[in-house]
Amino acid sequence: MNVVVQKYGGSSVATPERIKNVAQRIKKKVDEGYKVVVVVSAMGKTTDNLIKLAKEISPRPDSRELDMLLATGEQVSAALLSMALKDFGVKAKSLNAFQVKIKTTSHHTSARIVDIDDSVIWENLKDYDVLVVTGFQGVNEHGDLTTLGRGGSDTSAVALAAKLRVPCEIYSDVDGIYTCDPRVHPRAKKLAYITYDEALELTALGAKVLHSRSVEIAKKYGIPIYCASSFTEEEGTMVVERLPEWLEEPVVTGATISHGQIKVSISFLPKDVKYITAIFEEVGKKALNVDMISLVPSNGKIFLSFTILEDHKEDLDEALKEALRDVEGWKSTYEGGFAKLSIVGVGMRTSPGVAARFFEALERAGVTPELVTTSEIKISCLVPEEKAEEALKSVIEEFEL
Amino acid sequence: MNVVVQKYGGSSVATPERIKNVAQRIKKKVDEGYKVVVVVSAMGKTTDNLIKLAKEISPRPDSRELDMLLATGEQVSAALLSMALKDFGVKAKSLNAFQVKIKTTSHHTSARIVDIDDSVIWENLKDYDVLVVTGFQGVNEHGDLTTLGRGGSDTSAVALAAKLRVPCEIYSDVDGIYTCDPRVHPRAKKLAYITYDEALELTALGAKVLHSRSVEIAKKYGIPIYCASSFTEEEGTMVVERLPEWLEEPVVTGATISHGQIKVSISFLPKDVKYITAIFEEVGKKALNVDMISLVPSNGKIFLSFTILEDHKEDLDEALKEALRDVEGWKSTYEGGFAKLSIVGVGMRTSPGVAARFFEALERAGVTPELVTTSEIKISCLVPEEKAEEALKSVIEEFEL
Repeated sequence: MNVVVQKYGGSSVATPERIKNVAQRIKKKVDEGYKVVVVVSAMGKTTDNLIKLAKEISPRPDSRELDMLLATGEQVSAALLSMALKDFGVKAKSLNAFQVKIKTTSHHTSARIVDIDDSVIWENLKDYDVLVVTGFQGVNEHGDLTTLGRGGSDTSAVALAAKLRVPCEIYSDVDGIYTCDPRVHPRAKKLAYITYDEALELTALGAKVLHSRSVEIAKKYGIPIYCASSFTEEEGTMVVERLPEWLEEPVVTGATISHGQIKVSISFLPKDVKYITAIFEEVGKKALNVDMISLVPSNGKIFLSFTILEDHKEDLDEALKEALRDVEGWKSTYEGGFAKLSIVGVGMRTSPGVAARFFEALERAGVTPELVTTSEIKISCLVPEEKAEEALKSVIEEFEL
Repeated sequence: MNVVVQKYGGSSVATPERIKNVAQRIKKKVDEGYKVVVVVSAMGKTTDNLIKLAKEISPRPDSRELDMLLATGEQVSAALLSMALKDFGVKAKSLNAFQVKIKTTSHHTSARIVDIDDSVIWENLKDYDVLVVTGFQGVNEHGDLTTLGRGGSDTSAVALAAKLRVPCEIYSDVDGIYTCDPRVHPRAKKLAYITYDEALELTALGAKVLHSRSVEIAKKYGIPIYCASSFTEEEGTMVVERLPEWLEEPVVTGATISHGQIKVSISFLPKDVKYITAIFEEVGKKALNVDMISLVPSNGKIFLSFTILEDHKEDLDEALKEALRDVEGWKSTYEGGFAKLSIVGVGMRTSPGVAARFFEALERAGVTPELVTTSEIKISCLVPEEKAEEALKSVIEEFEL
């Protein structure tokens, strides 16, 4: 039995017309001899609208009930897509989280998949050619509906593919993964292949093609993911463990910008790790996401900088005051208006001189980075927002992206 | 433990504001010392809108998938109402058909409840003061969602009350059961009590306060139903097996009109029951609802009349031709523009002369009935549409309704 998991995002099923279009694409796959397990998101802006409705009831809606509410969105699109498929003569059936027994942790609105009862899928595939499964949701140990957080349908799809040990295809309104944002840089190149690690760095950097948790699962279980558009027949991008032998490995695969960064710097800290720990503990309690941590010792003191994405100066000040209540003489600055520019590529591991070329490109654009962080396959730097695009352009030229 | 089932209809939960109002009413009941099992319908026109959406996908949507789709409506209102209750400090929780294990027959879009696992309810009532259960839906033996048809949430509520052996309160935008339609006859009287049998006849006649299946279940298990408005504090109507002793039993409890009747008459049929059977078999195959059957033998022939509600002359003609293909000389007429006027009352059983008073009232209005049918507690007659209101007025005066 040739089985494949296909996932269709919210914009791909936003209208009855688009749902019929998706049904036709699935029918084509069935006609090619496949059994298809389809994972759907909620139609268009449904989830946002349901959240809005909940906020009209309560400023802070109970999270268990919010999941009960949001889970209806995917059930609607799964039912409608199955209707369309049956109308086209395809043996199809929708299944929700209770029916597929998608077990998750108890954390409402950000649950993680613990297990999926694949026997339900295999049993149903005997009688049906297509099973349409509600994405984004599961059931916890108390029998309550949970949701997986933003982009959770990608996770549902890859987790299903991993459990069934079959390939996964993710369809959205984006036709693949590019070296940089094609809406901003029309000459951006679409990648035929990208490694899990590169895709992970790119999604963590805000490239919205794939949800990072789905890539993590795919990497763990070695499930290839094919990303393409549901609106065109264009070739998409294959996400794999290793690039094919015949493909010349590019040094840098992609470049992205992540906007709205705020730089926080704390100077004259005592050289004791306990204060660093205290700072990140208190900042974590305020639910602020910290990135680009960089730490420099000087004259027996520590100078610490990091970035946050949310503008919560008060929360941050409170956190610092709490963490450093025993410390005297420390100072902090808080400055918005920055963007994070990053390049990603597994080739960096083996190609020396990438950092030098990166900084040369910045120099040519007349940009001095405020902060720099690196990983094995990524270099990121913080630059002033107004110079970010120019810097990115220069980097794209340097690495021919 | 004082437990009560309360049901709130679609218009009672049509907006976030109304949902909060309903939550306040439930909280009041909790403050009085009750644990409340709430059954909710979908918000306002949600079900109609979902059906419209389905029809945009397919002119005849698959019924299994239609149920999967429609069941989301009640899940939305159950989740929102639970949020509102929790916001008011009430220990509340929503439960859908999978969670309550509402078992139904397999007939999609018109399933019947087979059993409810009341242990889930009792278990949850230990920890919660209010359980908000999705009405209108269940799960069949294949584990598929089903719906109970129009008015099904009433059925859900009464079935739950019957299983739990507790009273049932049904709240809607109507504040009780009246002797006749209060929108048309401002002097109509609200009944403090009505028997199951009378309520059954009235709902079958189109009085939209209660769904007839819910009354059947209440009668079977002896569950009192209290019908009232969710918008006012006015006393409603209690539906019971027997009127209280102290209440003088009225002879006629209610009068209603059912519009849009079509009269079908077939004359010169052979006096053989097989042709009557054949006619109703063929008419049934066309899914036409037949009412007011009346049959008169004359000169060795049979003259048959009945009414239908739907204007499907072609279907009817086909059915008659098929049923009477061996018969010669029969004739049929098909005539619209009639209304059915009915009076209902358990007192009829014991009070002679009701029929006479009924026909006298018609005579005073200058109306000659075209067809008459009777049951133990009901008399119905078919009258021309344009004279129906006048006839009703005369009947209302006669019986002081």
